[in-house]
Amino acid sequence: MTEVLILIFDLVGTIAFAISGALVGVGKRMDLFGTIVLAVCTATGGGVLRDLMVGNIPPYMFRNPLFVGIAALVALAVFFLVYLHTKMPKILSTVYDKMLFWFDTLGLAAFTVDGVMVGIRKGYEDNVFLLVFLGFLTAVGGGTLRDVLAGRIPDIFLKHIYAVAAIAGGVTLTLTRFLGARVSMILGFGVVIALRCLAAHYRWNLPRIKE
Amino acid sequence: MTEVLILIFDLVGTIAFAISGALVGVGKRMDLFGTIVLAVCTATGGGVLRDLMVGNIPPYMFRNPLFVGIAALVALAVFFLVYLHTKMPKILSTVYDKMLFWFDTLGLAAFTVDGVMVGIRKGYEDNVFLLVFLGFLTAVGGGTLRDVLAGRIPDIFLKHIYAVAAIAGGVTLTLTRFLGARVSMILGFGVVIALRCLAAHYRWNLPRIKE
Amino acid sequence: MTEVLILIFDLVGTIAFAISGALVGVGKRMDLFGTIVLAVCTATGGGVLRDLMVGNIPPYMFRNPLFVGIAALVALAVFFLVYLHTKMPKILSTVYDKMLFWFDTLGLAAFTVDGVMVGIRKGYEDNVFLLVFLGFLTAVGGGTLRDVLAGRIPDIFLKHIYAVAAIAGGVTLTLTRFLGARVSMILGFGVVIALRCLAAHYRWNLPRIKE
Repeated sequence: MTEVLILIFDLVGTIAFAISGALVGVGKRMDLFGTIVLAVCTATGGGVLRDLMVGNIPPYMFRNPLFVGIAALVALAVFFLVYLHTKMPKILSTVYDKMLFWFDTLGLAAFTVDGVMVGIRKGYEDNVFLLVFLGFLTAVGGGTLRDVLAGRIPDIFLKHIYAVAAIAGGVTLTLTRFLGARVSMILGFGVVIALRCLAAHYRWNLPRIKE
Repeated sequence: MTEVLILIFDLVGTIAFAISGALVGVGKRMDLFGTIVLAVCTATGGGVLRDLMVGNIPPYMFRNPLFVGIAALVALAVFFLVYLHTKMPKILSTVYDKMLFWFDTLGLAAFTVDGVMVGIRKGYEDNVFLLVFLGFLTAVGGGTLRDVLAGRIPDIFLKHIYAVAAIAGGVTLTLTRFLGARVSMILGFGVVIALRCLAAHYRWNLPRIKE
Repeated sequence: MTEVLILIFDLVGTIAFAISGALVGVGKRMDLFGTIVLAVCTATGGGVLRDLMVGNIPPYMFRNPLFVGIAALVALAVFFLVYLHTKMPKILSTVYDKMLFWFDTLGLAAFTVDGVMVGIRKGYEDNVFLLVFLGFLTAVGGGTLRDVLAGRIPDIFLKHIYAVAAIAGGVTLTLTRFLGARVSMILGFGVVIALRCLAAHYRWNLPRIKE
C-alpha cells in the first residue's frame, strides 16, 4: 500500500512538472524536441539530484524508462495542444501563469514527499535535517534546473512561499511518521498544497528590499 | 584496437568541444583565463556528468590531466589566434556560426560514442535506455554547461536536430553492436554527423509555436 | 590542531560566501527566503560538488546542519541590516562591489585550502592534479552556482585573477606539504589572498579581445 502511494506521488509529480516544463518551453518558443527535453529535465531533475546525493547510481529515472517516457509524452501532448490551436497562445497568455502555478505546486508537493521517503528507505530516518533537505532538493531541483536552462531566474528565489512550502511539508512528514507512513505522506503533501494556496490567495509575500 | 578507437573519439571530442567553448568565450569577451576555463568545462562537462551518473569517482577527466591539458592548450591557441590578428573578429563574425556548428557536431558525435561505450564497460549492456541516455548526456552535457555558464539558452533547446542526432547515434551504436565494437562505433558516429549535416543543408526544423 | 585549523577555514569560507551570496540576493531584490537560499547555495555549493566528485555521500554539508544553519543566520543578518536601514541601499551601492570582492576573496582562499585537504584525507595525496582541481572546484563552485542561479555571468569568467588565484593557492599548498600541514595550509591561503589583493590594487587584467 505504501509502495502504491509512493508510485502515485511519483507519477503525479512527474506529470505535473512535465507540464510545467513544457509550458515554459512553449513560452520560450522552443521547438518540439527542445520542449520535450526541457519537460524531461524538469520532471526528472530533482530526482536525479537526490539520487546523486544519496548514491543511487545510476539514478533511478535513467534505469527505468517509465518516467522519462511519461514526461516526454506529456510534453508532446502539451506542445501539440498549443500548436494545433492557433488561438491557444492568446488563451494561454491569460491562464499561463495560473497553470504554471498549479502544476508547479502539485509537483512540489508530490516530490517533497518522494524525497523524504527515499531518504527514509536509504536508512537516514534518524537525520531529520537530511530527510527534510532531500525532500526540498527533490521538490525544487527540477523547477530550478528548468529555469536555469530556460534563462529565467529560478522561481525559488522570487515566488512567495515556494521553498518555505517544500520545507514545511518535509518537516510535517518527518515529524508525523509515528502516525504511519501513509498518513504522514498525505499530511506532508497537504501542507505544501495548503501553504501555496493560502500564499497565493492572500498574496502573502516575504519581505523584500525596495528600490 | 577498440581501445585505440575509443581514445581517438575521446581526443576528437575533447578538442572539438574545447574549440567550441573557446569560441563562445572569445565571443563573450571573456579574458584569457575565463576562455580557458569555459573551454575546459565544455570539453570535460559531459564526461564528468556521465561519470557521476555511473559512479566513476573521481571522474576520469580529473584523475588524468591529459584531457584538461589538451583542452587548455587548444583554448590558448584559439584565444591568441583571435587576439593577435586584429582583423580576426571581423572574419570570425562571418564564419563564427559555421565554425561553432562544425566543432559542436564533431564533439557531439564523438562523445555520443564515448558515452555509450562507457556504459557498456560499466556492465549496463542490457539496458538500451540507459546506454542511449549515457551517450546523450555525455554528448550534450558539455555544450549545455558552456551555454548556461556563458548566459546563453543552450543549443539543445533551439538548434534543429541537435539532441535528436545524439539520440539517433546512440540508438544506432547500441543496436548494431552485433557487427562488432568498431563497426558499431563508426556507424553511431556517422549517423550523428550525417543527421546534423542533412539538417543544416536542408534547413530541417522541428515544429515551433509561432508568435 | 590541524583539525581545528581546517574547521576554522571551513567556518571562514562558509561565512564569507554566505555574505557574498546574501549581497547578490539583496542586490537582485530577492525576498528574505530567496536571499537565504542563495546564500546557503553559495556557501555550500563548492563543498557539495567536491563531495560528489570524491564520493562523500551524502555530502558533508547536508549530514551536519551546522554549516547550513550558520549560512542561513548570516544571510538573515545581512538581509535585515539592509532592510532596516532605509539609507543602506545607497551606502551599499558605493561599497557593494568592494564588499563582494573581499568576502569572495576570503571564501575563495579558505575553500581552496579546504578542498585540497579533503582530497589528501581521501587518499589522493599523490595526485597533485586532482588535489589542485579539488581545491579549485571547492573554491569556485559556490560562487559560480550563485551567479548561474542569479542570472549573472560567473565571476570566474570575468574577474581578474579569480580562478588563477585559486589554482596558485592549491599548487602552493600541495607543493609545500613537506613543511607540515599547518604551515602549508596558511601558505596556500595567503597566496590566494595576496594574488587577489595585488590584482585588485594594480588592476592586473588578463588579455581580452577588444570589440
